[in-house]
Amino acid sequence: MPIAHLGHGELYVDDLAAARHYYTEVLGLTCSDEDQTALYLRAWQDWEHHTLIIRKGAGRGLGHISWRVSTPEGLEEYARLFEARAIPHTWLPKGHELGQGEALRFSTPQGLPMELYWEMVTWRATDPARSSVYPSFPEKFPYRGVAPRRIDHANIMVNDVAAEQQWISEVLGIKHRYYVERSDGKRQGSWLSVTNLSHDIAVMHNEHQDGGKLHHQAYYLDSPDELLRAATIIAQHGGRLEWGPGRHATSGATFLYFFDPSGNRLELWTGGMLIFPPDWQALRWNPEIGREGFDMWGTRPPASYLSYGSPPVTATRQYEEGDGVA
Amino acid sequence: MPIAHLGHGELYVDDLAAARHYYTEVLGLTCSDEDQTALYLRAWQDWEHHTLIIRKGAGRGLGHISWRVSTPEGLEEYARLFEARAIPHTWLPKGHELGQGEALRFSTPQGLPMELYWEMVTWRATDPARSSVYPSFPEKFPYRGVAPRRIDHANIMVNDVAAEQQWISEVLGIKHRYYVERSDGKRQGSWLSVTNLSHDIAVMHNEHQDGGKLHHQAYYLDSPDELLRAATIIAQHGGRLEWGPGRHATSGATFLYFFDPSGNRLELWTGGMLIFPPDWQALRWNPEIGREGFDMWGTRPPASYLSYGSPPVTATRQYEEGDGVA
Amino acid sequence: MPIAHLGHGELYVDDLAAARHYYTEVLGLTCSDEDQTALYLRAWQDWEHHTLIIRKGAGRGLGHISWRVSTPEGLEEYARLFEARAIPHTWLPKGHELGQGEALRFSTPQGLPMELYWEMVTWRATDPARSSVYPSFPEKFPYRGVAPRRIDHANIMVNDVAAEQQWISEVLGIKHRYYVERSDGKRQGSWLSVTNLSHDIAVMHNEHQDGGKLHHQAYYLDSPDELLRAATIIAQHGGRLEWGPGRHATSGATFLYFFDPSGNRLELWTGGMLIFPPDWQALRWNPEIGREGFDMWGTRPPASYLSYGSPPVTATRQYEEGDGVA
Amino acid sequence: MPIAHLGHGELYVDDLAAARHYYTEVLGLTCSDEDQTALYLRAWQDWEHHTLIIRKGAGRGLGHISWRVSTPEGLEEYARLFEARAIPHTWLPKGHELGQGEALRFSTPQGLPMELYWEMVTWRATDPARSSVYPSFPEKFPYRGVAPRRIDHANIMVNDVAAEQQWISEVLGIKHRYYVERSDGKRQGSWLSVTNLSHDIAVMHNEHQDGGKLHHQAYYLDSPDELLRAATIIAQHGGRLEWGPGRHATSGATFLYFFDPSGNRLELWTGGMLIFPPDWQALRWNPEIGREGFDMWGTRPPASYLSYGSPPVTATRQYEEGDGVA
Repeated sequence: MPIAHLGHGELYVDDLAAARHYYTEVLGLTCSDEDQTALYLRAWQDWEHHTLIIRKGAGRGLGHISWRVSTPEGLEEYARLFEARAIPHTWLPKGHELGQGEALRFSTPQGLPMELYWEMVTWRATDPARSSVYPSFPEKFPYRGVAPRRIDHANIMVNDVAAEQQWISEVLGIKHRYYVERSDGKRQGSWLSVTNLSHDIAVMHNEHQDGGKLHHQAYYLDSPDELLRAATIIAQHGGRLEWGPGRHATSGATFLYFFDPSGNRLELWTGGMLIFPPDWQALRWNPEIGREGFDMWGTRPPASYLSYGSPPVTATRQYEEGDGVA
Repeated sequence: MPIAHLGHGELYVDDLAAARHYYTEVLGLTCSDEDQTALYLRAWQDWEHHTLIIRKGAGRGLGHISWRVSTPEGLEEYARLFEARAIPHTWLPKGHELGQGEALRFSTPQGLPMELYWEMVTWRATDPARSSVYPSFPEKFPYRGVAPRRIDHANIMVNDVAAEQQWISEVLGIKHRYYVERSDGKRQGSWLSVTNLSHDIAVMHNEHQDGGKLHHQAYYLDSPDELLRAATIIAQHGGRLEWGPGRHATSGATFLYFFDPSGNRLELWTGGMLIFPPDWQALRWNPEIGREGFDMWGTRPPASYLSYGSPPVTATRQYEEGDGVA
Repeated sequence: MPIAHLGHGELYVDDLAAARHYYTEVLGLTCSDEDQTALYLRAWQDWEHHTLIIRKGAGRGLGHISWRVSTPEGLEEYARLFEARAIPHTWLPKGHELGQGEALRFSTPQGLPMELYWEMVTWRATDPARSSVYPSFPEKFPYRGVAPRRIDHANIMVNDVAAEQQWISEVLGIKHRYYVERSDGKRQGSWLSVTNLSHDIAVMHNEHQDGGKLHHQAYYLDSPDELLRAATIIAQHGGRLEWGPGRHATSGATFLYFFDPSGNRLELWTGGMLIFPPDWQALRWNPEIGREGFDMWGTRPPASYLSYGSPPVTATRQYEEGDGVA
Repeated sequence: MPIAHLGHGELYVDDLAAARHYYTEVLGLTCSDEDQTALYLRAWQDWEHHTLIIRKGAGRGLGHISWRVSTPEGLEEYARLFEARAIPHTWLPKGHELGQGEALRFSTPQGLPMELYWEMVTWRATDPARSSVYPSFPEKFPYRGVAPRRIDHANIMVNDVAAEQQWISEVLGIKHRYYVERSDGKRQGSWLSVTNLSHDIAVMHNEHQDGGKLHHQAYYLDSPDELLRAATIIAQHGGRLEWGPGRHATSGATFLYFFDPSGNRLELWTGGMLIFPPDWQALRWNPEIGREGFDMWGTRPPASYLSYGSPPVTATRQYEEGDGVA
């Protein structure tokens, strides 16, 4: 009954036109679809209809984080598990999201709205300016904007990292890969994956202890050089850099954190380790080397990085009541 | 009963001292162990004791290609499968290879010697010049040589691609990811993986039709820029470049093919796609776009690339008779 | 009386609309000005009004190659030198080219039309989407297209390399930096500069011996990684790659040759040596190592590279009769 | 009578053996020569016998900064100028520095010891492991260490930037290229060059006002990707990073500052602008955009960067009394 991979995120913004310019021109994502309240975006080698939904709201916010299950039966299996554990959940009908089949919505214990789905339109460009004859290119490599290759991971911030990680591992079956833990046993962060990526989702400690938030959604770039190019583009064209370029010693990946015009944090990320051993034991970092784990080149995250995020937008604003157990 | 990932390759060379200089100084692999006839090598972030064995022989050659199974029971399960299918196989005792537990040897239908194993020593540098305090760094990032991050894939050349691919998929459970097929149905090449890599093993058409060979073993670099640096280093320090730098349109990865001093072909490879969809259907490339699949920047492989390889070294030269079904 | 640096080139094309899309969108040059028959283009950090003029013609062709003199008096001094040597030349009035002052046109012995100028408008973006507050950024770093940093050099192809090089060195004062010479003394190519660049202009042997042509105009990129990105963009978006990526051993620079839609050859180029010694002696490459001088990674130039170019468009098509000595 | 280019620097260290390991193995410079008290080092494409002298002393310190003059007569011409201006100077005999001819030592007004020379041995590797058949490669591209291409610039820190810059421009003929100036007219930094580099020497404000020091000597790398690789190598192998990777908006170059084991600051630097216009006017940055001039990606220099440096080692410790005017 495992999850196959991270699917997409949904972010709220206050200005859809500004977001469109920023996400499609500056960041170089493709708008594969849209309706009156949302843009459906994807990176050039994302196979699915969308890996990011940008929805009109009253400011920054998290709609949901979505995972694809591994089999057509996966949704029903998770629904039964949720019932057995009395985890509230809601069914969304096919088409509730453009391009997507039926979906199952639920929240993590610390309030992060999530979704499971199986059916999703596979996207291929048909516009001659974008369509590629290469079977492995859903569209041509773009000449515009930062142009990341694919979605990489989501990162959430919660009051209690260990509890959230254990729930995600136990209920969703996403393996614990590495973590930072103080000598008193307090967990600072945990990174988890169900694929060979070093993490599909990270859980970080919220220093303000004001509840669960999205910390960032990350896209993957093909090289450190492209990441530096991205830093210059974003700095010059209306983005706001927060931290980086730096290199996480934990994963070995090179990072850049920045904000969209509504204040949602995004990450560009490249390189680092993949994880193949079937008997992998989560690696423990203590906070001392954990500081270098943050950036092996020596910078420290700004204060904003340790508490600021996109709060979940309440479910009632997001969708009609479904047929879940609650 | 699946395989977890590619483990290592074993190559024969005629001059072990020349190989040591080339593999450790120029290519920057670490010699983690050795005995009188072989060097055990690994890339700086390979977790296992070795991902390449260089063995003294009478010239270039393939010893075996090795895969790690997913569970401790995996070896027995494969042995039963081999017996059920009357596939000859041999048990090797723990320690037959340094650092490795019991192993199961067999050959593919077209004669490529392979191995399955579960137990393998996890390597960490203890030498202060190499050891790292970072839990995710088996050793420090090296300042010497090309210094790839990790093993990536193996590539074999056979008389009948389709038959070999089907056997590998059916018996070993390694999924078919993409292939090149002529309009008359003749298969030119197939790429397979059990991980999220675009391929853990490739099977290519041998134009000379003189049997199965190793085409190359590949290591992964973190960036195209490091690959160009590698090309210059190899060209200036005793290696021989065959083809590249180029970019395969099939995978999107940037490649460089070259030889070791005994004539075994190696590849350095970076970037390209990972494959996450659980319902992935193998992508078909026809030979016309397949030409661009070879190199989307327009170069053509030299003739050597289509027929030359490292032939398997006969089993009797490799190990004592075991207890296999045959 | 020296020349200060290469200024710009003028290329003929058959389709101005196709050229506009290619040069501004795909290559990412800025169109700083235009009139009914020509586009004036520059790279994002070119300070001058233009470094490339694309002019409507009947097909590919070279208009002229232009150099900036070092002092306001330089034009008159060159005019006197041309008179003393009976070199035909023509004065063009200010504004003949948009943004440029008075200019002096002449031809090299083998028929390459050239120009000298002193006055040129310094360009700065005023459009808010492009203008930068940084004094050293004539415009923001662009997020569109290949986006080279600056013009680098011109390369011409002639019947007699040694004679053309000597004339350029003697009359124009551009120093000889390195050359390839056969054992029988035949010159295959010469590279010259008046700046610290390894060459501002190259002179190559025309294998067809059909007269002087422009071989290519080159723009500079900041990294090899950007050059590989450019190769993919050009291959996917209507350009035609001819040769590369490769690395010239002569200069150490990484190269990519390709064509515009009308068949003019362009180069993208990055890295390699600068030349600082005041007593530099031109380096001689013999053809054997000269083969590696072409590409130290081992590729060979295609046949087209050794003879194809953009022929000069006759003067009468280019400008009205002037007041030159002839 | 102009200077041709920056030649070399001389740094004092407290431990020559530690310095040798760091400079040759980790940084990948070549030790071209040595005597009992000093190592003579150069980058792989530096043509001269040395571009850095590391001398045994009592701790970090600056010996001198050295410039090559443009003609054989240049030294005498500068000596006459110094006499005319009553600038104390000293002649050093040929061989005082290994590989170098006669030299003229003097100090800037704020106490930075400098040197002029004409004769210098051109170095080529003869050791087969390093020697290259390429005329433009003084040695093969190294596979060891950071391996920068060439010396780039020197940077000094003084109490009065404007006065020091004016003296260097007036007396040494090195042109003023760009500067940061407060609204009250106080100069924060000035960058000067006699070549097409954006600067051969920089002069920065010493916040502690404790006199002239060397801020750093810089070497050039071929790409931002190599600079990130260098950051990881230095952080892992005994160096200490101070600031970066970042990108100076002023020059557009990507930077990394770090220390040698004795505490001398070094810089690795890549890309950015070259300056070609013969009528270049120094660009003024005000401190507001000057903050971005420091790093357009938004980091701020640490406090150490604004005051710490390598103080000049007194002349008497450096060389015997010469025949200068004083």
